[in-house]
Amino acid sequence: MILLDSVYDHDFLLQNLQQELQKNPDSLPFDEILYCNIGNPQSLGQQPVTYFREVLSLCDHPGLLDKSETHALYSSDAIERAWQILEKIAGRATGAYSHSQGIKGLRDEIAAGIAARDGFHASGDNIFLTDGASPAVHMMMQLLIGSEKDGILCPIPQYPLYSASIALHGGSLVPYFLDEETGWGLEVDELKKQLEEARSKGITVRALVVINPGNPTGQVLAEENQKKIVEFCKNEGLVLLADEVYQENIYVEDKQFHSFKKVARSLGYTDDDLPLVSFHSVSKGYYGECGKRGGYMEITGFSPEVREQIYKLASVNLCSNVSGQILASLVMNPPKAGDESFESFMVERDGILSSLARRAKALEEAFNSLEGITCNKAEGAMYLFPRLHLPQKAIGAAHAAGTAPDAYYAKRLLEATGIVIVPGSGFGQVPGTWHFRCTILPQEDKIPAIISSFKEFHEKFMDEFRD
Amino acid sequence: MILLDSVYDHDFLLQNLQQELQKNPDSLPFDEILYCNIGNPQSLGQQPVTYFREVLSLCDHPGLLDKSETHALYSSDAIERAWQILEKIAGRATGAYSHSQGIKGLRDEIAAGIAARDGFHASGDNIFLTDGASPAVHMMMQLLIGSEKDGILCPIPQYPLYSASIALHGGSLVPYFLDEETGWGLEVDELKKQLEEARSKGITVRALVVINPGNPTGQVLAEENQKKIVEFCKNEGLVLLADEVYQENIYVEDKQFHSFKKVARSLGYTDDDLPLVSFHSVSKGYYGECGKRGGYMEITGFSPEVREQIYKLASVNLCSNVSGQILASLVMNPPKAGDESFESFMVERDGILSSLARRAKALEEAFNSLEGITCNKAEGAMYLFPRLHLPQKAIGAAHAAGTAPDAYYAKRLLEATGIVIVPGSGFGQVPGTWHFRCTILPQEDKIPAIISSFKEFHEKFMDEFRD
Repeated sequence: MILLDSVYDHDFLLQNLQQELQKNPDSLPFDEILYCNIGNPQSLGQQPVTYFREVLSLCDHPGLLDKSETHALYSSDAIERAWQILEKIAGRATGAYSHSQGIKGLRDEIAAGIAARDGFHASGDNIFLTDGASPAVHMMMQLLIGSEKDGILCPIPQYPLYSASIALHGGSLVPYFLDEETGWGLEVDELKKQLEEARSKGITVRALVVINPGNPTGQVLAEENQKKIVEFCKNEGLVLLADEVYQENIYVEDKQFHSFKKVARSLGYTDDDLPLVSFHSVSKGYYGECGKRGGYMEITGFSPEVREQIYKLASVNLCSNVSGQILASLVMNPPKAGDESFESFMVERDGILSSLARRAKALEEAFNSLEGITCNKAEGAMYLFPRLHLPQKAIGAAHAAGTAPDAYYAKRLLEATGIVIVPGSGFGQVPGTWHFRCTILPQEDKIPAIISSFKEFHEKFMDEFRD
Repeated sequence: MILLDSVYDHDFLLQNLQQELQKNPDSLPFDEILYCNIGNPQSLGQQPVTYFREVLSLCDHPGLLDKSETHALYSSDAIERAWQILEKIAGRATGAYSHSQGIKGLRDEIAAGIAARDGFHASGDNIFLTDGASPAVHMMMQLLIGSEKDGILCPIPQYPLYSASIALHGGSLVPYFLDEETGWGLEVDELKKQLEEARSKGITVRALVVINPGNPTGQVLAEENQKKIVEFCKNEGLVLLADEVYQENIYVEDKQFHSFKKVARSLGYTDDDLPLVSFHSVSKGYYGECGKRGGYMEITGFSPEVREQIYKLASVNLCSNVSGQILASLVMNPPKAGDESFESFMVERDGILSSLARRAKALEEAFNSLEGITCNKAEGAMYLFPRLHLPQKAIGAAHAAGTAPDAYYAKRLLEATGIVIVPGSGFGQVPGTWHFRCTILPQEDKIPAIISSFKEFHEKFMDEFRD
């Protein structure tokens, strides 16, 4: 099995450093590891949204709902919401297996949230609740891939879940390159070129994966661009797999999130025109509830026979966890104006999102201020993906050490500063170019120190290897 | 994909009846559907264990732990345990992705629980926390199966997760038959015969699945029998996949649960002798927390290289849900004598287990009292698997209707009484024999009505078709 090996090698060094830092802290030139590698906000101190956790806590222990003391500890709208949710669950049994697609009432609530977001109808029957987005992606790959002759168009660079899942299911990844020059633009000409090349090799391309906002690239697609992508899928008979887990993470005024379903419907396309899957998750957004493993996929445009196959796949694992299901319904239907928690909820939500926007900007500016680094704006998601223009000597040193130049750079950075980034080779990149992914998630008060420590390392590195 | 098709056809009828019961209740000869089909205790009114839910509720909303009012709503040992658990989680972040194997401190606690149960060492490094037992089974099948030439020895009858998972991963199920005559005995001679037959067909048999206590068969293996199974796996170089999710569900005085690891260690076998996986889940036992999707597998006797592959597979889905992880640690380390909750916990626990034992006995006696039904004792688990000795005319009617005789019987039962059972064909059975699986989970006060309704149906059915 070929799974993210470069990422795991990096993990191994990291574990050694973590142990060394505990046993022998003076031996290292830094006093903490600064995790800029994984999109895991709460591991870096982001606090969960109070309202969401109140509701989960009450649903876990419904006996509380009958007690007057509960009002001293929980907001009244959280109590009311917990009641509403329990009413949607047969026997109020949050400890029972649900329907394999998830609890119907929660799916309907999510569908209502999607309809409110998009302005187009959505149905709870089309929602499959899953333990985060990853199992949903695996389910679709299982369905789409029968042999290595089945291809999936994937962006390069890409979140390696897709390459791993395609490899696990024995299919062929058909790469298309995002254009760094145009802010990681997704060009339909490139899609066509790669599709034709794959077809000429006898590969049947089944689907196109689009990650919007992008991971690891942080771009937000323009609506016009999305329309062309939809037309492309329709004309070529491809399933559009839309990874939309960062839909709430937009940091620039001039961009907005548009779901691919909304774009398709606004073009007049119905269920008959285009099979489309939208993946979403409770792990990202302003909530960042990675540990809860909640998520869903909305599937439209599939035949009843294919839907039945998807349902059977979902039912092999019985159901997703009910707390994650509840949380998915909450993020798609958060407190509204007039609710007791609304104001405090908005303060928490906007506080997180505006801080993420400031962090994204500060890191982008810092990277762009350095010799040998260029960095596109993080319009959305949780990442920057700067390009390293390394001196030939550094590339030579990396080759001598038996590693890719970006992996060499990341290793040296980690050893010198404790800052953890992921080398671009973990995501794929245009051959001969080097990048790294850096999250914008460290707490805001740590950003200046990270920037200064990074700058110091980088300048020394460039001095060491300047041609 | 061939996945449980007979079970799904049955589902379809069931959904129609559910709808009919809501729309047009007078059209049916019963006024509720009686679910004896799925091992889903809380869907049938079993209450969750209070202490477990208190701890989960607190861990979901850790802000409560600092408030004095919390003591009015939660037991003091639940509060203390929540603190202890949060201390095991970096940054107390229950909303962060954990280590892909699960939170180390919780794995250590589970290992301590295993060691206390077995009297042999266990290590948290060998524990992989999973979203219920099913994903753990899939992970092992993914690892063990490379092609259709890789075989897995599975009991017949068997819980169809195994056949589905083997089919999904493209391997070959090598059946071995449990001996109904000896109470669903697992005979090593039968294992040998089937192993040799598979080998003669060019199949490389990789592993043996044993479900103990049995599903759907409810037997508890004797320790002597387990020893022989361990010896067999060691001699034949097979991985022993031990489904031990019903380890707390034992209903007879003369049987005890022994883990296969304990049996192997008591024979003197170490990690060097035998690769062994034990699957466990929070969905069964007296807790029955199916909706929480918690579980673990303990793996021993694998090389570092194989362990690394398992770790990579686990990390493809990032981690299992943290609430499920916490719950898995709680079921392996429940309240102890002296804890505030201990007495009420024991009342809840023993109340559930003794009631399940009474229900198992009542149903078994009822089945055995009927013409044309024989039924082994449910020594453990949550099921009876009675054999139907059907008149030839009934078999003919089934064939005329295009269904298997046990599926025909189950359908007629459902239409006449609202009682839902699963036909034996969903689990596999000796060709020409017919069975059904019936859970012991309906609430105790409903059992007499179920029995009487079942009897009435069965007698009429036999009268209708008596040869």
